[in-house]
Amino acid sequence: MSGFGDIVGGNGRDSRPFFNSRWVEAPVDFEELDPSVLPRGFRAGAVHCGLKDDGGTDLGLLVCDEPEVASSVLLTRNAAAAAPIRVCRDHLKQGSVRAAIVNSGNANAATGEQGLADALAMRDAAGIALGLDTETVAVAETGVIGVPMEMDRVLSAIDGLAEGLGECGGIEFSEAIMTTDKWPKRCTLKSGGVTISAQAKGAGMIEPDFATMLCFVQTDAIVSRPEEALRRAVDASFERITVDGQMSTNDTVVLQASATSGLDLPDGLLDAVLLQLALEIVADGEGATRVGRIEVTGAADGEEAELVARQIANSPLVKTALLGRDPNWGRIAQAAGAALAGSDIGELGPDVISADELAGEQREAELGLKLDRGEGRAHVYFSDLTHEYIVINAEYTT
Amino acid sequence: MSGFGDIVGGNGRDSRPFFNSRWVEAPVDFEELDPSVLPRGFRAGAVHCGLKDDGGTDLGLLVCDEPEVASSVLLTRNAAAAAPIRVCRDHLKQGSVRAAIVNSGNANAATGEQGLADALAMRDAAGIALGLDTETVAVAETGVIGVPMEMDRVLSAIDGLAEGLGECGGIEFSEAIMTTDKWPKRCTLKSGGVTISAQAKGAGMIEPDFATMLCFVQTDAIVSRPEEALRRAVDASFERITVDGQMSTNDTVVLQASATSGLDLPDGLLDAVLLQLALEIVADGEGATRVGRIEVTGAADGEEAELVARQIANSPLVKTALLGRDPNWGRIAQAAGAALAGSDIGELGPDVISADELAGEQREAELGLKLDRGEGRAHVYFSDLTHEYIVINAEYTT
Repeated sequence: MSGFGDIVGGNGRDSRPFFNSRWVEAPVDFEELDPSVLPRGFRAGAVHCGLKDDGGTDLGLLVCDEPEVASSVLLTRNAAAAAPIRVCRDHLKQGSVRAAIVNSGNANAATGEQGLADALAMRDAAGIALGLDTETVAVAETGVIGVPMEMDRVLSAIDGLAEGLGECGGIEFSEAIMTTDKWPKRCTLKSGGVTISAQAKGAGMIEPDFATMLCFVQTDAIVSRPEEALRRAVDASFERITVDGQMSTNDTVVLQASATSGLDLPDGLLDAVLLQLALEIVADGEGATRVGRIEVTGAADGEEAELVARQIANSPLVKTALLGRDPNWGRIAQAAGAALAGSDIGELGPDVISADELAGEQREAELGLKLDRGEGRAHVYFSDLTHEYIVINAEYTT
Repeated sequence: MSGFGDIVGGNGRDSRPFFNSRWVEAPVDFEELDPSVLPRGFRAGAVHCGLKDDGGTDLGLLVCDEPEVASSVLLTRNAAAAAPIRVCRDHLKQGSVRAAIVNSGNANAATGEQGLADALAMRDAAGIALGLDTETVAVAETGVIGVPMEMDRVLSAIDGLAEGLGECGGIEFSEAIMTTDKWPKRCTLKSGGVTISAQAKGAGMIEPDFATMLCFVQTDAIVSRPEEALRRAVDASFERITVDGQMSTNDTVVLQASATSGLDLPDGLLDAVLLQLALEIVADGEGATRVGRIEVTGAADGEEAELVARQIANSPLVKTALLGRDPNWGRIAQAAGAALAGSDIGELGPDVISADELAGEQREAELGLKLDRGEGRAHVYFSDLTHEYIVINAEYTT
């Protein structure tokens, strides 16, 4: 539709290796399994309850059967957060999450008190069907906003869903959480004797779900500090991507570790998985055809470096240059100057800006900016801005 | 080209009245003159020196013949500011600006030491040709960046240009400063016994000049505090607009008052002129078909209100909703929530968001958001995001 060529890569197009980005350091030794396989102790499944018009699965459930699960949850910081975020924030034992119930089709955002009651009811029904403390059940939702939940459909489907969970439910679950994603984002990997699986969604805003990003990670490894491990991996992955600079009302990441393997999670494995998934989300950004990575070095400090990198990554001028294969270093200079408005960094020229790969044929373009203000550095991944973005976002009416 | 209909309004399409926006309070009593007419004491003119390939005028000169001119200059805060900005910042008597020399075609940005020398040489040549202290001559440039100036063309044209200045040079000057503007932005008004004229350009980025905004204002009124008057008018006009959230390396506004009328500038006249010109620039934003105004009230303070208003105005989701005539209040809620990330403003719904005019037929859409955090308020004007923006910015290669 964009007329600018197709995305070449894409995880979940299961014929490709999961690790397919130049920017992800894959584990030294690993085996890629069928993404339906879940680590020992986990089951998942999905049904069509009726939120999606196209008959696709729209309600997913994931459970860890081990009572002593170690977990961590990260939630959007959007100040107008949706009902499921409020439920997870206020009523979830985030260190002991046994299960997650997820719908796609309705974000249950901007739905007021009724929305909050609905998110709680969905969670409670899942908890009861699984025989779990309801405060150990996470709830996540993605889809249209400002539309009341069709709760009868959701609630009447949960018992059947809970009965049908299977140890090979990874693919089913990954597909049930998709909205406008063009491909599922998922993997199951074996490395260092442990298994890790993950399912993510992002990208689409058609209805308009604000590119809600959801990600669920399961492992049979021992993760002794799940909060710390998840925070670090997310800081280097989902926190470093931008499609259009917008922050969703519903973003959620859940990590669950069952420890059934008796082995520690290998260093870097979680980080590599989340970074690859984050890059899939950028690559599947609305209408995206290419992904850029801008690295800013020599800033006064890390915070300043990040400010500059984000200004560049979110600049529609840089994004259209990435689309148009225009090695336009001037647009990077301008964005950097705007980020640091009020100070004086001199004129920035091609001696300190790497923009050649904007013009390259590769799907992933590496860009750089060297400032001369200190030791701060930061990088951000971003998509190009295309006609399809406008088609998707302008030619839809609530 | 956009397929979404033409801009209906537009100053400088001289058949329309200058004041044509619902958001501008025109003076109670005024007469609109031919925009070629300049206030007493001013002369202007333009030539084609060879920077523009299409043969259009690309070098303009404006002078106040009264030695006791009162003036003020505002310059971009972009940290990577262009050579002419540096010259005006460091070497201009900003309170006594007699003349302005302007080229369109080359922004003289990211051109290093040579660029700085060129901007000084251009200024010096104009000052000498006019017999003025060179530190009373402003220099402004707009066009491609990172390309050395063809100074021989500029310098060899200046003497002839200076000789040909006329009291009716307003139209000529306004056209010489245009780059990708679709229409000139200018006016000459008589009100309360004084005359004020102004010429502005903005909008285009094709080459890529980063939507550089230039504006020159002349009046024969007494302006006793020109800095204060200009700052106030710019704060309410050029500082309140956004096309794509980018800040130019070259933005310049110059106000000159000759006092030859012996009368004070009527209250609000400068503000009305600059606001109308600012709205013309938004309406002529790259590919723009509609203009929105978002007013945020009830923020904790003015700064917070502005932060929220800008996040909404720069949201590509809101911009595409303006294009698509989608009364999508959820996108306003999401942007507001993102602006205030980390705090909790509850879910925002249609009870506090006015988004109906997104769907209207009018060219100017008024939007609102009422927060419940204090007395802070702010508003921002913005354009929609269209296919033509992408065509303009992606399908051009340096």
